[in-house]
Amino acid sequence: MTLEEKFTKLGVDHAPGQEIRQKGPDLLSQGESIPGVPVDFSHGDVDAFPPIPNSLEQFIEGVRVGGRQAYTEYRGSAAIRQDLAAKLSRFTGTSIASADNLILTPGTQGALFLALASIVTRGDKIAIIAPDYFANRKIPEFLEAEILPVTLHYLEQEQGAGLDLSQLEEAFRQGAKAFLFSNPNNPTGVIYSDQEVDAIARLANQYQVTVIADQLYSRQIFDDRAYSHLCRTSIDPERLITIIGPSKTESLSGYRLGVAFGPSRLIQRMEKLQAIVSLRASGYNQRVLRLWFDEPKGWMEQRIRDHQAIRDDLLEEFRRIDGVRVRATEAGSYLFPQLPNLTVSIEEFCRLLRVQAGVTVTPGTEFGKAYTNSIRLNFSQDHQAAIQAVRRIGQMVERFRKSE
Amino acid sequence: MTLEEKFTKLGVDHAPGQEIRQKGPDLLSQGESIPGVPVDFSHGDVDAFPPIPNSLEQFIEGVRVGGRQAYTEYRGSAAIRQDLAAKLSRFTGTSIASADNLILTPGTQGALFLALASIVTRGDKIAIIAPDYFANRKIPEFLEAEILPVTLHYLEQEQGAGLDLSQLEEAFRQGAKAFLFSNPNNPTGVIYSDQEVDAIARLANQYQVTVIADQLYSRQIFDDRAYSHLCRTSIDPERLITIIGPSKTESLSGYRLGVAFGPSRLIQRMEKLQAIVSLRASGYNQRVLRLWFDEPKGWMEQRIRDHQAIRDDLLEEFRRIDGVRVRATEAGSYLFPQLPNLTVSIEEFCRLLRVQAGVTVTPGTEFGKAYTNSIRLNFSQDHQAAIQAVRRIGQMVERFRKSE
Repeated sequence: MTLEEKFTKLGVDHAPGQEIRQKGPDLLSQGESIPGVPVDFSHGDVDAFPPIPNSLEQFIEGVRVGGRQAYTEYRGSAAIRQDLAAKLSRFTGTSIASADNLILTPGTQGALFLALASIVTRGDKIAIIAPDYFANRKIPEFLEAEILPVTLHYLEQEQGAGLDLSQLEEAFRQGAKAFLFSNPNNPTGVIYSDQEVDAIARLANQYQVTVIADQLYSRQIFDDRAYSHLCRTSIDPERLITIIGPSKTESLSGYRLGVAFGPSRLIQRMEKLQAIVSLRASGYNQRVLRLWFDEPKGWMEQRIRDHQAIRDDLLEEFRRIDGVRVRATEAGSYLFPQLPNLTVSIEEFCRLLRVQAGVTVTPGTEFGKAYTNSIRLNFSQDHQAAIQAVRRIGQMVERFRKSE
Repeated sequence: MTLEEKFTKLGVDHAPGQEIRQKGPDLLSQGESIPGVPVDFSHGDVDAFPPIPNSLEQFIEGVRVGGRQAYTEYRGSAAIRQDLAAKLSRFTGTSIASADNLILTPGTQGALFLALASIVTRGDKIAIIAPDYFANRKIPEFLEAEILPVTLHYLEQEQGAGLDLSQLEEAFRQGAKAFLFSNPNNPTGVIYSDQEVDAIARLANQYQVTVIADQLYSRQIFDDRAYSHLCRTSIDPERLITIIGPSKTESLSGYRLGVAFGPSRLIQRMEKLQAIVSLRASGYNQRVLRLWFDEPKGWMEQRIRDHQAIRDDLLEEFRRIDGVRVRATEAGSYLFPQLPNLTVSIEEFCRLLRVQAGVTVTPGTEFGKAYTNSIRLNFSQDHQAAIQAVRRIGQMVERFRKSE
């Protein structure tokens, strides 16, 4: 593949947050605008749900510490890794060694890139869930790996995430070297059941597949559902990298912090690569991780309740729109409704929605090419503004509904 | 190349700041320790030379701005890019368009990786200076590009940097797709003369080579020397990416900020890649760039004078050591002395120096495999502690001097 082809494929125009760069004809002229408070569902609103209390104070303390905090090891400050390893061990019910098995990265995006580039290279096969986070496909594509898609029957099946186990095993049988999945799933918000997680462990061991589990939203579980950490199963620990970070529920995205833990061999590769990609997570910013998993009493519980309430209201709004299919979010802040057939493409609909109704969402096609009728919303937003915005989505669906 | 081979090659054990991870026999037992204040010359000391005044206040303002500052475009906040494009246009004497020609990155390391990965791929040839910054070789190696080394005769020649122009032209003639060099040069601290910079421009145009100019230290010029910006020459602007950042002279390394400017086609590729590698430079951190090129009156001048004074004293100390060859730093904070022959390898000497004398330096072999007798020092340190540390280097040279 030439570089030109590679970069043509690697689009960002529809990526969340990049909508501002879209150029084109004056879309406003194609329809009347629907008034309302603009809502950007492409990512969470850290003004509506601010960062963990005292984050800034911790950052300031990092600056006060000075040189030692500015220039940490590439894998991050030893003291902070030690603290985090203990907390993450408790959270996951495992035992993580801070010296060799954990790395701090610039956001979980950084961790994902480093993990993938440490495991797969040109020509390797990798099993990827559809739908799943868009970078899960874009990174392997950039690395020239071959993607074997594995379907999540999230709408058809309400037990577990709806993982197509026979497809997964077939991908492994075809020689997949790696398997990457997010749990809770982005964009659908479903949780993999114990049975599904156990099956992944069993198949990974059987076929010697290295797994990357992106657990970014695993602290924000609704309705007291069960959540199974893959790292706590029978999976060979030499074959698993777990990724997690404080950018979502904890609203620390502006600090760009992520964590990966796994076998020392792979963590070392990730560090070597980080040394030439970005050196390290910003030194002072690392300090903010001290607060993570140590939030004020009741703070996380309240945050989860608040999000569950928004979810309930938005679900109700979406279910009022004729022809919408949507599954209730089980964890995390995403909704992934499937809209009825429209007279415009989903990318075009998203552009129109933004320009005519002040509502920014991400087209489903970012998560898998089959999702031509779906949109993703991050509902970590001002509660009332979000409800009004979904009503405007309903009005826009009527405006562009295809007559059957 | 297999991933295993690739990562075996990609070492970080001797990289600056990673010395803490070196394991091995108890080196202390091999010699008496030499007392003194420990000095880590592997990078600048931001405690001795603190960040631009009010950096922290700008960061705090970024946090106050909130969501808009946390979630910028991948290429960075539009307002900050606009401000920076104007300042960098003035500094370089060119005209940079903020919308299309400039990207903010997590450190200049981030910019370097993105630029290289946007220009060269497997099998492409790239001309690289020896000696030059270690990542300049490591990144192309990771991308499986073929490196064509071009020698800098920095010791033999005192006019300009000592660029071997016939080697450069030969590399271009052999089909180099890209050429990467740092000016001022890291590790030697020499500046490319107007004639050398013009020759690079002329050859790049003639052979259609894309150039990456790393100008990280171009604000810290000693003895009022002339400095020529490649972007201001006759070079085809479609063939040049310039990289610069506030991590060194301005001591903002703990914030991880870098900038690249160049043709929109390549900046767009860099942004696409950034979207899957790290998303963006930390949002709140970007805000600190407001202060860059807008430091308090006299602050930069004082900082340059302070560094020039340290350079003078360290040079004097080094020239007292029999057999040392060293060229005076013309810009930036690096010295790259060549030591006399020793009874141990340069990597071993650096380890012994750290353990027995409390002095951390980077072995010359990180900058090119020929530099088996050289060490690099970043002399942005406490002035008196640095002088004492170089004296201890002298004592250690005597301890391990090879008898002729």
